[in-house]
Amino acid sequence: MMKAVGVIVEYNPFHNGHAYHLQAAKETAHADIAVAVMSGNFLQRGEPALISKWYRTKMALLNGVDIVLELPYRFATQKAETFANGAISILDAIGCHSLCFGSESGDISSFLETVDYLDRHKDRFDENIKMNIKSGVSYPKALSLSFQSLSSPENLLSLDKPNNILGFHYVKALNQQNSSIIPLTVKRKNADYHDEHFATETIASATSIRKALFSAKEKNSSIEQYVPDASSTLLKEYLAVYGNFHEWENYWSYLRYRLLHISPEELREIYEVEEGIEHRLIAAALDSSNFKEFMQKIKTKRYTWTRLQRICVHILTNTKKAEMKSTPEKAAYLRLLGMTKNGKEYLNKYKSQFSLPLISKLSAYKGNDIFLDIRASRVYSFGLENQTRDNLLRQEYKQPPIYIE
Amino acid sequence: MMKAVGVIVEYNPFHNGHAYHLQAAKETAHADIAVAVMSGNFLQRGEPALISKWYRTKMALLNGVDIVLELPYRFATQKAETFANGAISILDAIGCHSLCFGSESGDISSFLETVDYLDRHKDRFDENIKMNIKSGVSYPKALSLSFQSLSSPENLLSLDKPNNILGFHYVKALNQQNSSIIPLTVKRKNADYHDEHFATETIASATSIRKALFSAKEKNSSIEQYVPDASSTLLKEYLAVYGNFHEWENYWSYLRYRLLHISPEELREIYEVEEGIEHRLIAAALDSSNFKEFMQKIKTKRYTWTRLQRICVHILTNTKKAEMKSTPEKAAYLRLLGMTKNGKEYLNKYKSQFSLPLISKLSAYKGNDIFLDIRASRVYSFGLENQTRDNLLRQEYKQPPIYIE
Repeated sequence: MMKAVGVIVEYNPFHNGHAYHLQAAKETAHADIAVAVMSGNFLQRGEPALISKWYRTKMALLNGVDIVLELPYRFATQKAETFANGAISILDAIGCHSLCFGSESGDISSFLETVDYLDRHKDRFDENIKMNIKSGVSYPKALSLSFQSLSSPENLLSLDKPNNILGFHYVKALNQQNSSIIPLTVKRKNADYHDEHFATETIASATSIRKALFSAKEKNSSIEQYVPDASSTLLKEYLAVYGNFHEWENYWSYLRYRLLHISPEELREIYEVEEGIEHRLIAAALDSSNFKEFMQKIKTKRYTWTRLQRICVHILTNTKKAEMKSTPEKAAYLRLLGMTKNGKEYLNKYKSQFSLPLISKLSAYKGNDIFLDIRASRVYSFGLENQTRDNLLRQEYKQPPIYIE
Repeated sequence: MMKAVGVIVEYNPFHNGHAYHLQAAKETAHADIAVAVMSGNFLQRGEPALISKWYRTKMALLNGVDIVLELPYRFATQKAETFANGAISILDAIGCHSLCFGSESGDISSFLETVDYLDRHKDRFDENIKMNIKSGVSYPKALSLSFQSLSSPENLLSLDKPNNILGFHYVKALNQQNSSIIPLTVKRKNADYHDEHFATETIASATSIRKALFSAKEKNSSIEQYVPDASSTLLKEYLAVYGNFHEWENYWSYLRYRLLHISPEELREIYEVEEGIEHRLIAAALDSSNFKEFMQKIKTKRYTWTRLQRICVHILTNTKKAEMKSTPEKAAYLRLLGMTKNGKEYLNKYKSQFSLPLISKLSAYKGNDIFLDIRASRVYSFGLENQTRDNLLRQEYKQPPIYIE
């Protein structure tokens, strides 16, 4: 019996903190292999990934992951709860024995107790959240305030830390889906998720690494102490092959073009475009020369930066409410992006028992749902110049799962 | 009483042939002023204009036109019949005494007789066209074949010449609209509409001039003998201010982006997308690195290059069947792009008698219909680089009519 531990990741890019977590996950879980559910080309914060999912898959495999599965677009660019439900359903379907996530807390019992406690006080908690939202704050803020206002006798989590929140939703999703996966957590090493500055000599947040990459561009030597060699090499290779890393500014012309030819009525059909924000989006697009300026124009207290960026991703990819309304709690397929030799062994041994279809070749799968991922990849390619775009576009259809021996 | 002669133009760009025609028109009509109805930023052949409508207006005014009115998008990017109806309704509304168009024929009586003849044989003619279309040829081809097959005892036109066809539709539109405008024609000097080569020492087709401009780029000296000085100066100025001339290849990334995020069902809502061509368009967009390659992939015997380009313009500007279904035969407004001193005098004298509202300031007009022109201008600005785009975008809202003293 091969034991698999699941991790839920973006690897944008894979850095030393990820390497540490992966190692700790395998040890804590006594696992034979590690399975990563990784977001595709657009991420939870509503941003394009720095480099394509194929390159991030290679990074993962060269750094200790054995199987990489794509977290579908319909879960990857969503609030924590939906994100967690999608990811957990995939790890469950592929038969993971345990799930190990990084958290600020590091104590799994506090997660279990918090989920249980909130479940028992659900009505009061929900009521409280609603009240807070009415007062004009964003959803995450309302969640955190409501949580603080509950009298908390027990060993409860601090739910104002981003990784604690994610972990909380993972554990909640495991409960809801009656999964037999055992939840585990390891304490994150230093770097806070949002840190823009390097925290220690070898550990830095992905945010600070991306920041350094964009300010240094060609010469990414300044990040080398924070990422494994394989990451550094692949980042350089990506630049050489594709010409640039992906960031919102590369997509600004396309987002703007879209906002300037679409009617408010059509815009309102896009997922998460609510409450008349469509008019503000169009007016701001007319007046902004770059994405940052645009974001500053549309930012309000009610909307977090992340939520607004996610709305922009949905507009950019033409993701409609009608397409997402039917969003199931669980994934419909397992899209294999890559595997190691051990990963392949695991797949061959157990695939007959997986509760979802395993897709290694896009053309062999006939489900409709995967079109959202294909479309996201098409749109993602527009972050590159004309000449290299074709290259990336073709990959979505022709790239077999990456195999590392 | 000031006498105005109308001309229907694209001026893409204004060249010596246009100057000759304008002069001849004023003389033939014994006119005090010349009024031009000029297509906006997208043209009848389904192409972006080389330079913006504002620069083309300046060219027109500096070369002898007194009033420039915009032919709205809903008429400008259409087959000859609709194009003609829109243009005639504008010249009629502004009180033109006569219309003078260039033609291969040069004999106005042949136009009058042909319109009359075809009116009398309408049923047989229409039947014939339908049969020809069924055999798989394009509409213009069917028209020409049907026309040839009629026994033509009288002084009929050759309807296989592009300017004769346009003229035919102008005269027909005058009839249908019961206009009191007197139709006049002058024989075109040499250069054929489609000619790609320079025809004489001073007269060349706009097509050949554009071709030279795109192959020479910066140094547009090679066209100087074929255009008036004002044109040459303004072309150079446009390059200096905006960085490039507009051509389909500048819009290819946006058209492709649109075709790769839109569903076939949504694409079918676009004006003129019919008969399942939506699937071919999407497939070709995936596989083509530039516009030319794309066009070659979608070209069939049934669709002329022009018709396909017009479809592409409608896709690019998001022009829906539902928006065009209600296309009236006549324009709803007169959008003033520019005037000379004489033109201003004419407007002041007669504007109370115009049968349509005269728009000199966009913000002062509340009609819905003009949004198609605004949207076309927004989209047109994407043919420029990011930095100069804002400039052009703002012009649509802030530019008062151009005035040349």
